[in-house]
Amino acid sequence: MTPHLSRRALDAPASPIRRLMPFADGARDRGLHVHHLNIGQPDIATSSTMRAAYQAFSDEVVAYSPSQGTLSLRNALADYCRSNQLHGAQKPVDPDQILVTVGGSEALLFTIAAACDFGDSIVVAEPYYTNYKGFAHLLGCDVVPLTTGPEDGFDVDPARLSARLAAHPRARAFIVPSPGNPTGAVLTTERLSQIAAVCREHGVFFVVDEVYREFVYDDELAGGVAPSALALPDMGEHVVVIDSVSKRYSACGSRVGWLITRNASLYAACLKFAQTRLSPPTVDQFAAEAAVRTPMGEMRANIAAYQARRDVVVSGLNAIEGVSCPNPAGAFYLVADLPITDSNAFCRFLLEEFELDGETVMLAPAGGFYATPGAGMNQVRLAYVLDIPALKRSLRIISEGLLAFQRRGNI
Amino acid sequence: MTPHLSRRALDAPASPIRRLMPFADGARDRGLHVHHLNIGQPDIATSSTMRAAYQAFSDEVVAYSPSQGTLSLRNALADYCRSNQLHGAQKPVDPDQILVTVGGSEALLFTIAAACDFGDSIVVAEPYYTNYKGFAHLLGCDVVPLTTGPEDGFDVDPARLSARLAAHPRARAFIVPSPGNPTGAVLTTERLSQIAAVCREHGVFFVVDEVYREFVYDDELAGGVAPSALALPDMGEHVVVIDSVSKRYSACGSRVGWLITRNASLYAACLKFAQTRLSPPTVDQFAAEAAVRTPMGEMRANIAAYQARRDVVVSGLNAIEGVSCPNPAGAFYLVADLPITDSNAFCRFLLEEFELDGETVMLAPAGGFYATPGAGMNQVRLAYVLDIPALKRSLRIISEGLLAFQRRGNI
Repeated sequence: MTPHLSRRALDAPASPIRRLMPFADGARDRGLHVHHLNIGQPDIATSSTMRAAYQAFSDEVVAYSPSQGTLSLRNALADYCRSNQLHGAQKPVDPDQILVTVGGSEALLFTIAAACDFGDSIVVAEPYYTNYKGFAHLLGCDVVPLTTGPEDGFDVDPARLSARLAAHPRARAFIVPSPGNPTGAVLTTERLSQIAAVCREHGVFFVVDEVYREFVYDDELAGGVAPSALALPDMGEHVVVIDSVSKRYSACGSRVGWLITRNASLYAACLKFAQTRLSPPTVDQFAAEAAVRTPMGEMRANIAAYQARRDVVVSGLNAIEGVSCPNPAGAFYLVADLPITDSNAFCRFLLEEFELDGETVMLAPAGGFYATPGAGMNQVRLAYVLDIPALKRSLRIISEGLLAFQRRGNI
Repeated sequence: MTPHLSRRALDAPASPIRRLMPFADGARDRGLHVHHLNIGQPDIATSSTMRAAYQAFSDEVVAYSPSQGTLSLRNALADYCRSNQLHGAQKPVDPDQILVTVGGSEALLFTIAAACDFGDSIVVAEPYYTNYKGFAHLLGCDVVPLTTGPEDGFDVDPARLSARLAAHPRARAFIVPSPGNPTGAVLTTERLSQIAAVCREHGVFFVVDEVYREFVYDDELAGGVAPSALALPDMGEHVVVIDSVSKRYSACGSRVGWLITRNASLYAACLKFAQTRLSPPTVDQFAAEAAVRTPMGEMRANIAAYQARRDVVVSGLNAIEGVSCPNPAGAFYLVADLPITDSNAFCRFLLEEFELDGETVMLAPAGGFYATPGAGMNQVRLAYVLDIPALKRSLRIISEGLLAFQRRGNI
């Protein structure tokens, strides 16, 4: 008798971006250079101290680390939190409130598992980071979207969040990235406080994915960090902060993340989940500890590079007829409205049928970032993770590509 | 309103071994040397080629790898399978049938998720590797035990497995390690075939955790590998093999594992789960690829060291009054019967109240390896992961400790 797969397996969401991969491969096979603006894999060199640490690791046995991560890494991360004053007027973060995970991904998995039972749900601000749904699905949970839009820079409206939570009594957490992926929106201190009040009122966890914390470009934040949920007063029971070395130190492949919570019960539950998988990667933790010592000048130069890229991309996109996007305050993504009705078809067109001087662009259709069916079909997400010359060529390709797409009768 | 944790969180199984950790810490604080025979963290040096690879990694950007793992690692693993003739008379394993995971742990998580929905169950041969339960619990699934015992070396009886599956219509997989943890039992080719027939009859997946494949000590297997489920005829739809660098190359902290399956639908489902967490660790995959090139002499010397340790421990334990254990054919664990009724109390006694020349021993009470309540209370698991002098001292401590424990009125 043939064994059958679970519904969990059959219904697992496929990555909307990966569905385009065969067409990108096809473009490459035809000899085209594809500018990858579709994923958050930066071209920026990994932190110099981190790379040196990989080469310096000299333990004779690459042994398990403690399930919660090495104490020395957790100490380094607590120091990082303190020196960036993430706690604001609250108590500094203690190393025992930090649980090291396999990337921010696993921190999200554990947090959703600790908050939600089968059939419970998480609320997300859409367009949202699609993998939130992947983790929820794996755990038998649903995603409830709170739609945001470009008219106010994809801000989260606390009153609408409250209504959404009231309408979904099985919602157990509100999960939002700030600075945001895919929108680049940064929640202000005031907005974080308002959302926190709503979460407290409804008795749900407030999970803030702060992996892009340093990627902030507005005058009042420049050179600093985005407001952190760790600074919220009286939210110790509610707040979980997700973090990672991936973007900050350009080390996506290191798979070292962590969660921070002052809720000791939630921490204990996540630790039990963590014990089941034994240990985060040991050498990568050693390297992550070194990453925290990345020279400030190197960090600043990287952020400045991203800010310059953002400026080029935002002004370039808005200069294209019919294209518009808000000026994102952080991260290295943006969501742009295009003068079309099917961005899936447009992204595929760019890969399959278009080229400019032997080059084309891969973008992420934004529909995949919405839980509401049919939403975002005129939008794309763009990750400005390439250098400025490549971005400028990409802008020309998008501009000419749109014209060609429209000429072919597509709108 | 305070948010509440999920039942999933509140009911998560705590590691039975970790519960003893405070007493081990206490012993160390009292100045004692604790021989750790409680966990599978070998003292053997990590593969020399693997350590060299960590230091040689020189990519400027530690980037995401493909979600299924790098092609070069999957090619190396396919070569390893071919050169060890794991496929027997079947087709060799293809790189596209290998999915690289974060340790064997994640391979188990994905496999259970692909096989089981909420409320489904997995069947395990108890005493079993406790983390199978941890993953099942995280996914909302149950564990159904099939009890095995020392009288036949903890062998799996196919007829009893069939009865167990018949009695549990929501069972979706039988998961067994071979060579076994905690028992050290190795399933013969004939036994694998019989179990496969039972799994096929009941339409359940046959998941064989082969991470200790090279750790075989019996004459007909010595210098080779344990029989693999990959060689079973007509089981392409049913078989999933779990593997890892952790034990084979003494690299537990590298967190590189993989699953192998010829079931393309199951592979596709696991790949979707894998895409959600983006990528296994990149530098560790580079090192894992080098691990496959570990000189055969080094591998053989390690296996010979474990075999010598096994011989010392098995004969030493059976020489103690009232103690008995089968001679395990593989892995580096054994389960021993002790002349007591509460091995939890005995293990704690060794750490809290006993010492011999400033030393004591930490063992794993076997109760934690049973899903049947109350089973295994007279047993301990011992991991022979220390050198022979340390093992000989540990045997004396166990022997004297048992006498002291019994003198105090404990039996």
